Amino acid sequence: MSAEIRVRRRVAFSETDAAGIVHFSNYFRYFEDAEHALWRDAGLSIHPESAEIGWPRVSASCEFHRPLKFEQEFDVSVRIAELSTRTITYAGEIARDGEKIATGTWKIACVSKLRDGTMRSVEIPAAVAERLQPPS
Amino acid sequence: MSAEIRVRRRVAFSETDAAGIVHFSNYFRYFEDAEHALWRDAGLSIHPESAEIGWPRVSASCEFHRPLKFEQEFDVSVRIAELSTRTITYAGEIARDGEKIATGTWKIACVSKLRDGTMRSVEIPAAVAERLQPPS
Amino acid sequence: MSAEIRVRRRVAFSETDAAGIVHFSNYFRYFEDAEHALWRDAGLSIHPESAEIGWPRVSASCEFHRPLKFEQEFDVSVRIAELSTRTITYAGEIARDGEKIATGTWKIACVSKLRDGTMRSVEIPAAVAERLQPPS
Amino acid sequence: MSAEIRVRRRVAFSETDAAGIVHFSNYFRYFEDAEHALWRDAGLSIHPESAEIGWPRVSASCEFHRPLKFEQEFDVSVRIAELSTRTITYAGEIARDGEKIATGTWKIACVSKLRDGTMRSVEIPAAVAERLQPPS
Repeated sequence: MSAEIRVRRRVAFSETDAAGIVHFSNYFRYFEDAEHALWRDAGLSIHPESAEIGWPRVSASCEFHRPLKFEQEFDVSVRIAELSTRTITYAGEIARDGEKIATGTWKIACVSKLRDGTMRSVEIPAAVAERLQPPS
Repeated sequence: MSAEIRVRRRVAFSETDAAGIVHFSNYFRYFEDAEHALWRDAGLSIHPESAEIGWPRVSASCEFHRPLKFEQEFDVSVRIAELSTRTITYAGEIARDGEKIATGTWKIACVSKLRDGTMRSVEIPAAVAERLQPPS
Repeated sequence: MSAEIRVRRRVAFSETDAAGIVHFSNYFRYFEDAEHALWRDAGLSIHPESAEIGWPRVSASCEFHRPLKFEQEFDVSVRIAELSTRTITYAGEIARDGEKIATGTWKIACVSKLRDGTMRSVEIPAAVAERLQPPS
Repeated sequence: MSAEIRVRRRVAFSETDAAGIVHFSNYFRYFEDAEHALWRDAGLSIHPESAEIGWPRVSASCEFHRPLKFEQEFDVSVRIAELSTRTITYAGEIARDGEKIATGTWKIACVSKLRDGTMRSVEIPAAVAERLQPPS
């Protein structure tokens, strides 16, 4: 069980742009992938096949300190900064060789899908909250 | 009604890569977007909200003749090359200022989703086939 | 000349995810594409072929109010919120039928590329600043 | 040294689409990532920082046999099918639990960038060809 995770990965060519560096939008994907790994590490999936609830983003922000280039390896660290009754706030950091590359924070909300396709905020199921709870 | 379409668009920065040109995988997205525009032009959506059938790719291929760069405008032409009982084959071309940029061909199959999540090939509904039929 | 722009576009299938809505990372691309259109509208390109300066993101944030789905049309509005000597801050809004979909803000910095590949903050060229200046 | 590689990876959420499966365009990225891993395995980079040559795609094709879903693990196998004086042709396969998911083939050309930005086909450097040569 864990409320924190670190994942090592490598820049793919399709993630770079004509400036020769990783396109900034991909940092949000790096953070999301690590977030989902944190869920798996806790024995959960954020999007199981027949889920009745979902976890859309409420907000996401990132500061970009240094660029990443093709084939560079880097570490993505993600931890749960706050676990409220209906939302989860994460804090993340991307680093390479001890240098900060990017810092991010984002919030997801637990929602149930209504018949008409709209989403309604609901409480996070206890079975999920327990597993994601930071160790005290 | 139409079995052919041409769409003009412009290269987005996020579509380029560190070689300074459009990443080849995005050509397949250019073709797909034009294909979906062709469906809309025929009064159809390839993925309506409550669809019981789907249209996965069976195959896709592309030849890349010349590169595209950031902000360049280009035309994507797509036509239905063959409409069989269960599949549709498209032929597409990307051009810029009269020069061929890429040539593609791809096939989609009509499927219904089974309870267990797998897909089974089914016949294309008459209402769809009629609208996509090339004018004779 | 303009320090504000509004662009209409439509959700592409490749921009959606398994939750049936636009993947949140694409909102940052929507904003960036509109930002680049604003530059073109001002007679500029943010990434001309032989540029000696570049414009990496310093930060980016977005609040997601409502989801977007495949083929929905929406408007992306972007304006320059602040033009300092070395950075530009944008404010953006995505809306659909008068409903707010997302609100974003992001900052880019003017940099020159050093021989060793690193980037150094430099002043925004006067020719660029003049054209991007909000009308007074 | 190796002219063949197999890489295991997992479906990211941003790679899925509203049909609930991996968007077909991402299979081309899976193959490309494994191709680049094959180069690294041979002690090479396909895009070193100060490269005077490049390796654009000449063609790419893929057959899609079965869908992949969020978080599924799969293997990407890539081998050099033909190494000619100016091009390299690859054959790839994506599989999961022994079942074929996709089969691909693609060709890249060795080019040098001319001053005007266009590309000219050139012979593959001996140092590259030797390292990518299939073991005899």
